[in-house]
Amino acid sequence: MGYSDLDWKAINTIRLLAVDATLKANSGHPGAPMGLAPAAHVLFNKFMTFNPKNPNYINRDRFVLSNGHGCMLQYALLHLFGYGVSMDDLKNFRQVDSITPGHPEAHDTPGIEVTTGPLGQGFSNAVGLAIAQAHTAAVFNKPGYELINNHTFCFFGDGCAMEGVASEAASAAGHLQLGNLICLYDDNHISIDGDTKCAFTEDVDKRFEAYGWHVLHVPDADHDLAGIEAAIKKAKEVKDKPSMIKLTTTIGFGSKLQGTGGVHGNPLKADDAKQVKTKFGFNPEESFVVPQEVYDMYHKHAAEGAAAEQAWNDLFKKYAGEHKDLADDFSRRLSKKLPEGWVKSLPVWKPTDAATATRKTSETVLEHIHSAVPELLSGSADLTGSNNTRWKNAVDFQPPSLGIGDWTGRYLRYGVREHGMAAIMNGISAYGTLIPAGGTFLNFVSYAAGAVRLSSLSHQRVIYVATHDSIGLGEDGPTHQPIETLVHFRALPNMMVWRPADGNETSAAYYMALTSTGTPSILALTRQNLPQLENSTIENGIKGGYVAVEAENADVTLVSTGSEVSICIEAIKVLKDQYKLTCRVVSMPCTEVFDAQPKEYQLKVLPDGIPTMSVEVMSTLGWEKYSHEQFGLNRFGASGPYKEVYKKFDFTPEGIAKRASATVDFYKGLKPRSPINRAFQQLI
Amino acid sequence: MGYSDLDWKAINTIRLLAVDATLKANSGHPGAPMGLAPAAHVLFNKFMTFNPKNPNYINRDRFVLSNGHGCMLQYALLHLFGYGVSMDDLKNFRQVDSITPGHPEAHDTPGIEVTTGPLGQGFSNAVGLAIAQAHTAAVFNKPGYELINNHTFCFFGDGCAMEGVASEAASAAGHLQLGNLICLYDDNHISIDGDTKCAFTEDVDKRFEAYGWHVLHVPDADHDLAGIEAAIKKAKEVKDKPSMIKLTTTIGFGSKLQGTGGVHGNPLKADDAKQVKTKFGFNPEESFVVPQEVYDMYHKHAAEGAAAEQAWNDLFKKYAGEHKDLADDFSRRLSKKLPEGWVKSLPVWKPTDAATATRKTSETVLEHIHSAVPELLSGSADLTGSNNTRWKNAVDFQPPSLGIGDWTGRYLRYGVREHGMAAIMNGISAYGTLIPAGGTFLNFVSYAAGAVRLSSLSHQRVIYVATHDSIGLGEDGPTHQPIETLVHFRALPNMMVWRPADGNETSAAYYMALTSTGTPSILALTRQNLPQLENSTIENGIKGGYVAVEAENADVTLVSTGSEVSICIEAIKVLKDQYKLTCRVVSMPCTEVFDAQPKEYQLKVLPDGIPTMSVEVMSTLGWEKYSHEQFGLNRFGASGPYKEVYKKFDFTPEGIAKRASATVDFYKGLKPRSPINRAFQQLI
Repeated sequence: MGYSDLDWKAINTIRLLAVDATLKANSGHPGAPMGLAPAAHVLFNKFMTFNPKNPNYINRDRFVLSNGHGCMLQYALLHLFGYGVSMDDLKNFRQVDSITPGHPEAHDTPGIEVTTGPLGQGFSNAVGLAIAQAHTAAVFNKPGYELINNHTFCFFGDGCAMEGVASEAASAAGHLQLGNLICLYDDNHISIDGDTKCAFTEDVDKRFEAYGWHVLHVPDADHDLAGIEAAIKKAKEVKDKPSMIKLTTTIGFGSKLQGTGGVHGNPLKADDAKQVKTKFGFNPEESFVVPQEVYDMYHKHAAEGAAAEQAWNDLFKKYAGEHKDLADDFSRRLSKKLPEGWVKSLPVWKPTDAATATRKTSETVLEHIHSAVPELLSGSADLTGSNNTRWKNAVDFQPPSLGIGDWTGRYLRYGVREHGMAAIMNGISAYGTLIPAGGTFLNFVSYAAGAVRLSSLSHQRVIYVATHDSIGLGEDGPTHQPIETLVHFRALPNMMVWRPADGNETSAAYYMALTSTGTPSILALTRQNLPQLENSTIENGIKGGYVAVEAENADVTLVSTGSEVSICIEAIKVLKDQYKLTCRVVSMPCTEVFDAQPKEYQLKVLPDGIPTMSVEVMSTLGWEKYSHEQFGLNRFGASGPYKEVYKKFDFTPEGIAKRASATVDFYKGLKPRSPINRAFQQLI
Repeated sequence: MGYSDLDWKAINTIRLLAVDATLKANSGHPGAPMGLAPAAHVLFNKFMTFNPKNPNYINRDRFVLSNGHGCMLQYALLHLFGYGVSMDDLKNFRQVDSITPGHPEAHDTPGIEVTTGPLGQGFSNAVGLAIAQAHTAAVFNKPGYELINNHTFCFFGDGCAMEGVASEAASAAGHLQLGNLICLYDDNHISIDGDTKCAFTEDVDKRFEAYGWHVLHVPDADHDLAGIEAAIKKAKEVKDKPSMIKLTTTIGFGSKLQGTGGVHGNPLKADDAKQVKTKFGFNPEESFVVPQEVYDMYHKHAAEGAAAEQAWNDLFKKYAGEHKDLADDFSRRLSKKLPEGWVKSLPVWKPTDAATATRKTSETVLEHIHSAVPELLSGSADLTGSNNTRWKNAVDFQPPSLGIGDWTGRYLRYGVREHGMAAIMNGISAYGTLIPAGGTFLNFVSYAAGAVRLSSLSHQRVIYVATHDSIGLGEDGPTHQPIETLVHFRALPNMMVWRPADGNETSAAYYMALTSTGTPSILALTRQNLPQLENSTIENGIKGGYVAVEAENADVTLVSTGSEVSICIEAIKVLKDQYKLTCRVVSMPCTEVFDAQPKEYQLKVLPDGIPTMSVEVMSTLGWEKYSHEQFGLNRFGASGPYKEVYKKFDFTPEGIAKRASATVDFYKGLKPRSPINRAFQQLI
């Protein structure tokens, strides 16, 4: 437990790197790094095992900075331990194309586990990392081979503590008894508006106890290194509860403005920076200084981590001898490749098969593939029977003591916590051994928008099973019927939004969702039954868009998705009989994947010279990209039996035919260019 | 406290109306109404004052059914008390165009205060209703005139208790010491996935205590009417804390499946319905039965409510004699009209005025109008200094005991609780005497998407002050830079999304936001400075789109919003000098308002024959509706000084000119139709 001057020199080095980097960038948050440096120093050096030379070492302890605005703390640590973050990178803090952006981004910076900054997310990701750890340990550890025993540590501040997403995740973590999770709460009494007294006076300790957490307190985490160490040690001893350690700290410790909001989100003034340096025994005229003995100390710990990985590799080699199948499976999962031949387990439908809701065809897919794809971890935000996310005989992921599942379980009951589910799934995905899929109604994926965005930004392979995808859900009514949801997520970069029209398109959606290792997916699925389509095949589906019904010399193309494709196909006959018009129909289950096809293919699907009308029973916005005219629903829906609701809004073969005919008239003699043709390329 | 057989007959009448309506609709949730009928009977008859003949009586007690799926409970109550909900309406439960939709909708059904169903929202609305009550009482009550003293009551279930939005609101309510708020928790241990044991094992009582609530428990709320009454009475006596009463109930009480998930979201089987009726002493062969003595009992209480309103009206008349200005202000607020002449307080900018960020021009608007518009209640989710939502000398809305504000305060510090803020604002707006405006970064309005949607659906005049609206926020980077956000909310029906280009457009945005009594607004505002534009006036701005720079025989129209308008104007010269092209520029601060203009006007702004290119530094989706080609950002942004970030993505006069020129080439000789011309009208 002995701490020396060198420890304090290291702590102050971290503090001053945060001071210097924010000052140089003239932007950023020095306060949290200055307050949390003591805890970070103790945690990283005394408790965490990791190898900076291989940030992906699978049994490393995970660290999440949920108060991501304090990222200079993390960048300083990464630099000191010898990750691929150089002093120049620190000097480029918050500059374009640097690896030290304003908030930590997992995809870009070695050693960053998850992308944080949007408050509450990192904390929830940490819960996901801990879940993945518990599951992976349960599946792969064998007597004599404790392959997986890492901990997940998380720093979070008052902002995260106030966010509902973190409340949801904390409640779930308490229920799940995640003893491998230790979260350190930066109790500095300051948020952007100043003293937390103005908005946040609850008893955070008591709240976490209510969730079932083990709660500890270090009253002077500015100075009491031994106290911090003792608390973390005690937390590690409690195996059946997550631990929350409240660290009472002083934000901006050392600054003239310490303990105030002034030091939260603004660099120190130049003279303040100098006085801090003097106070800490550093030369006030120098910047970005790391004493060699601090490097030495940190590199020594890094070397211990490298040795630990070496020992782990040796252990794994032995393990592979005794448990070959498990070892192969483990290695394969880390490569992100699915098992050879898994694709054969994807179900295929024939046009003569019964009409089925795509939430049911999705269930069939899960039923067929779950044993071929053991890394798939399904779940739902308390809508299991509606989302159809649970295969028969699935085991629930639960603490064994509850008697309703165990840690090897691959079905997670997230509770009515959509945002928490999404953020937890990001953490599960980030661990590296699992592919999480979680269900809710499409309308309530919007509750999770903050985390869904980070699935995309941080390249997580996460699958959102979003059933009840339109007014087709019927009686639940406008409060539950998505209108704006699909265009919202289509506009989100690096997100695949799938809306399959039948069983084979559902299989195609899962194929792409599972094999796109750096892109999340939303699968928008119906409550109501849909027929199996003639030209729908997995091969067609995975192109994102294809010709469902071709016609020579067509007068009009209808481009549609999901439940409306079969109505468009019915409209062909109405157009022929009543309007003497020839119509072709395109099914477009995923515009993002269609966008990635060669232009030549795209133009075969949406050719020049034929007016195109989109048909989708929600907002038309965005469909102008693929069609000349749009039939949709730019108002809220209605509560009633779904066929009545469709009729009310004219989403019938007749209603479609009427508008298709108007489209043909409008473009008569114009031979319009395909919407695929554009004047210039978009930035991507 | 005496309860008789008649009370039980009334309770069972409610239960059976829920059984019959869900059975007839073959859809809906009988379980919660059956479990909560005893509590509802006691609450409504013993504690609540309201007048069914005037559902808008301002000092009525408010009731919110946060577990909105149990709406047959509420519809049955409304019917029994004599609101405008007939027996035929109950028989039309969940049918198209009925006033008894699948979840309660405030806009459509008399007596429904707020739209619920999406879980956690109603609970949070109730917090808002209680805030509005406390403020309105503090402003208008005078010695001898307790004009406003109503309570807000809320039922919520396990689903709401799990939702983060409700956690946020509960924490805020505890901080605010809202003694006028009493929430009754339906502790029935069942959610859709079955026993709450599978996901929700926290100690809810303790959690609410941690938030600072007064917590009570009725262990047998199926039978103990006196216990329910005593608990509510006790809750009313505690004036400095909100109260949470845990009611342990049996879901689907009386059904063969009572206490199980089977009765949550499915009608009872026909034979089960019969046995319940027999058990409750009703004729098993009859449906939709209300004994006359039950009507009599409920109508008697309704008459007491009508008398209470009459007494209140008399009091108000006397009050108006003594406090004329206050009474006038009060009456005016209820009419939803703004004070005469308020519009003169809107600030106006000259083109020669300094370049200013629109978050600052927004602050100037608030500074100018706050005394003219006393119903404006501003606030922020802990970003006061960044959102610029607080006028100088504003008083905080705080419990006086904290010494940092009082109940008359018009600035609400919501804490880092975006979703909670939005849902609370919906409740504040629903109360009827206030217009709430709340700030956060535009990117984090997405955290609140669930509640924002309900602002629109339930016609609340709520203003979202959404600063830091693009990559122009600079250093905070991609985690904070919106890409998908504007199209998301533009696709939301009944929402005005404003992105003003300068000061006058900011005034225009506020003008429309404040005067549109049934439509919420999102004001997307910059962090960076923008010049004041020549043609920008409030009159032009409130048309949603107008010609910022006209040109005869133009080769191309640029249509743009916010910070990009002035860059487009700079591009005119580049186009002229380098490409010999004539360019006109349209500013389109609000597409929804532009859509409402006469087509003739729209075609003047976006005329036929000229190719149009949109310029907005985020997702291009949706812009195809107003332009032929689109320049935007369909990828995540970058962390760096904002000018560097704009340059990286080519959002410069040169980058715009290059693409405008490509657009002109692409349409050479084609004289394209204005995008305003369409083949058919959209459903609205």
